[in-house]
Amino acid sequence: MALIVQKYGGTSVGSPERIQNVAERVIRTKQAGHDVIVVLSAMSGETNRLIELTKKMSANPSEREYDAVISTGEQVTIGLLAIVLEEKGFPAKSYTGWQVRILTDDSFTKARISSIDQDNMRKDLNEGKILVVAGFQGIDSNGNITTLGRGGSDTTAVALAAALKADECQIYTDVDGVYTTDPRIVPEARRLETITFEEMLEMASLGSKVLQIRSVEFAGKYNVPLRVLSSFEEKNKGTLIVSEENQKMEQVVISGIAFNRDEAKLTLLGVPDRPGVAYEILGSIGEANIEIDMIVQNVSHDEKTTDFTFTVHRNDYNKAMSILEAVKEKLGAEKLSGDTKIVKVSLVGVGMRSHAGVASTMFKALSNEGINVKMISTSEIKISVVIDEKYLELAVRALHTAFELDKGNTDN
Amino acid sequence: MALIVQKYGGTSVGSPERIQNVAERVIRTKQAGHDVIVVLSAMSGETNRLIELTKKMSANPSEREYDAVISTGEQVTIGLLAIVLEEKGFPAKSYTGWQVRILTDDSFTKARISSIDQDNMRKDLNEGKILVVAGFQGIDSNGNITTLGRGGSDTTAVALAAALKADECQIYTDVDGVYTTDPRIVPEARRLETITFEEMLEMASLGSKVLQIRSVEFAGKYNVPLRVLSSFEEKNKGTLIVSEENQKMEQVVISGIAFNRDEAKLTLLGVPDRPGVAYEILGSIGEANIEIDMIVQNVSHDEKTTDFTFTVHRNDYNKAMSILEAVKEKLGAEKLSGDTKIVKVSLVGVGMRSHAGVASTMFKALSNEGINVKMISTSEIKISVVIDEKYLELAVRALHTAFELDKGNTDN
Repeated sequence: MALIVQKYGGTSVGSPERIQNVAERVIRTKQAGHDVIVVLSAMSGETNRLIELTKKMSANPSEREYDAVISTGEQVTIGLLAIVLEEKGFPAKSYTGWQVRILTDDSFTKARISSIDQDNMRKDLNEGKILVVAGFQGIDSNGNITTLGRGGSDTTAVALAAALKADECQIYTDVDGVYTTDPRIVPEARRLETITFEEMLEMASLGSKVLQIRSVEFAGKYNVPLRVLSSFEEKNKGTLIVSEENQKMEQVVISGIAFNRDEAKLTLLGVPDRPGVAYEILGSIGEANIEIDMIVQNVSHDEKTTDFTFTVHRNDYNKAMSILEAVKEKLGAEKLSGDTKIVKVSLVGVGMRSHAGVASTMFKALSNEGINVKMISTSEIKISVVIDEKYLELAVRALHTAFELDKGNTDN
Repeated sequence: MALIVQKYGGTSVGSPERIQNVAERVIRTKQAGHDVIVVLSAMSGETNRLIELTKKMSANPSEREYDAVISTGEQVTIGLLAIVLEEKGFPAKSYTGWQVRILTDDSFTKARISSIDQDNMRKDLNEGKILVVAGFQGIDSNGNITTLGRGGSDTTAVALAAALKADECQIYTDVDGVYTTDPRIVPEARRLETITFEEMLEMASLGSKVLQIRSVEFAGKYNVPLRVLSSFEEKNKGTLIVSEENQKMEQVVISGIAFNRDEAKLTLLGVPDRPGVAYEILGSIGEANIEIDMIVQNVSHDEKTTDFTFTVHRNDYNKAMSILEAVKEKLGAEKLSGDTKIVKVSLVGVGMRSHAGVASTMFKALSNEGINVKMISTSEIKISVVIDEKYLELAVRALHTAFELDKGNTDN
């Protein structure tokens, strides 16, 4: 007998019929002999409806009260699922964040979990009950309701799984797992049977939005086996996200190809090459609350100045440009240029650490298609390139073939 | 400086605009120098929407989970009002039932309040905050969410006023007070400036549905001055419900005329006059969960048998009749008859205790109009008669005039 935590998102509980379906799936897990804790989001659309209401009260609502209002969406779904489970003869009990006692700090709207009381849940599990816990919410040490921010239900599920040492934390979504790349671009894209936490983090932050980054970090930190599955079909087992030591021996080199269309590139050319220059450029961008993704600095041809390039979200491009205009004057840089028609494409895989030649295979594949690489950035398990937007599909397909991602470890 | 508890119902908080209006009124009370605790219902329609959802899950939903779901409606409105108050520069804080700690028994869907923690509320009041408390809900000693049953928000308001020894508990409704009778029948009907708890109870149970009976009982028990006012107009002070000792010296004899169109009458004639007969008749009705209102028993002409008449809700008439058919056979009674075209009209007033002649004035007024009285029942502060339905308006008008209810103690 295992302890399984299952998390269902807003689409999975978006109607009375769908809640019935979730109940069926929960019951099958229970009948297989497992203890089950279910974590639910609000019905799809409900959180937005509640946010709308608060916005009608104030353009800038009190965050304590905002959390009190929007946390009700999950309280409704957990009660409804518990009703169905009881109706079908399976003892069940709903738990709000404060009933579990998911203790958080007092950062309303984006609280962090500090501890989870196990006593009540253990007692109910021992009595054979199915527990249905509200995702996304907690309580601070002063008894105020807090919420964990968008996507916080994933974090709730992982935190519960970590606290109760669950055997698996299953995240049910509208996709059936993590793919080698977007199947809309590469029809041969293949679902991965397993992926490491580190790879998943790179995939997620690069735009493959299957799981909240925070919940993956959390699962990695506490070594909680995390599985992504579809809540609408049961034909496969999704993708299991595991720590590296639990990966198979014969690790493939590359797990997947991520991409991000939301970036824009800014370049300051001919900046005097002296200490503190990077801070003067990036500090002013950071102060404006603009997040910077890739940063590349190269010594320029004359070896007295340097060229500085970085990427930001496209929404921040104009703001970043006007800040750099001022920085350019101040530093006496030669030229400022920018480009919004770019994309970032990344190879991700823990296997590349021990395999030479990944970069050269990548650049050869791109070169064969006549695609010019404008920026390169690497980490231990990732190589990212910036290319012209128009080459996105071509590049992803070429890389998918070059690294033979259509052949692999899927379980069906 | 006084402590005022104000309760606003679902219609008063039925839209964002109306919540803004409630905020204005609360702020005026605060600006007058008072401490204010606001108790809110859910937005009108919201509780029904949530009940519908539970019914889609199960025809007979788990009561614990039902309470968890429907208690969310009030949590939304208290958060929204607190947001508006804060937006307008008035420190405010919402409290759910469990945050106050309104401790109840564990009778889900109809819980009774056993105690109220004052510490947190006192502290916040001392800091000048306006408190906004969710009506209708509490928490049992095991940490489960409970609800107090329909209309429970009135009870919450009175219980808070009693626990914190508030100077007044104001119930805002869609009527502007308690009237001598229904103004739709008697245009001269007059709003009462004051009424006693006992009279209010008789008026309410007789069909003048302004306040929940339970909250009036509670206010009487703890001697909480209770005021009914309109949430839509401010031109008068509504009706203050007080204990008898606080009533004015020159008490009028009759406070008002209540009536009830929902009753039906059943008569069993020629029942053997022996011990236990009343139980055999009424017991079988009670076992079928039919509530009995008036009961009249008279010795019949031959003095060996007795006639037995009682009234029930019209919805229960057919069920009660078929039960009595069986009882009639069993007891060997002579005849069973019934009438659904009746109404009950009642005079209510604590003053009738010390004034002889109320009954004779009543019967004379009815007789003058040719109205036949079919049944009479009296209590210390009430005389009720059952008459033909068609005479309802005539009887109420005649009595209103006979007892000079159009002249009196209103404050404007």
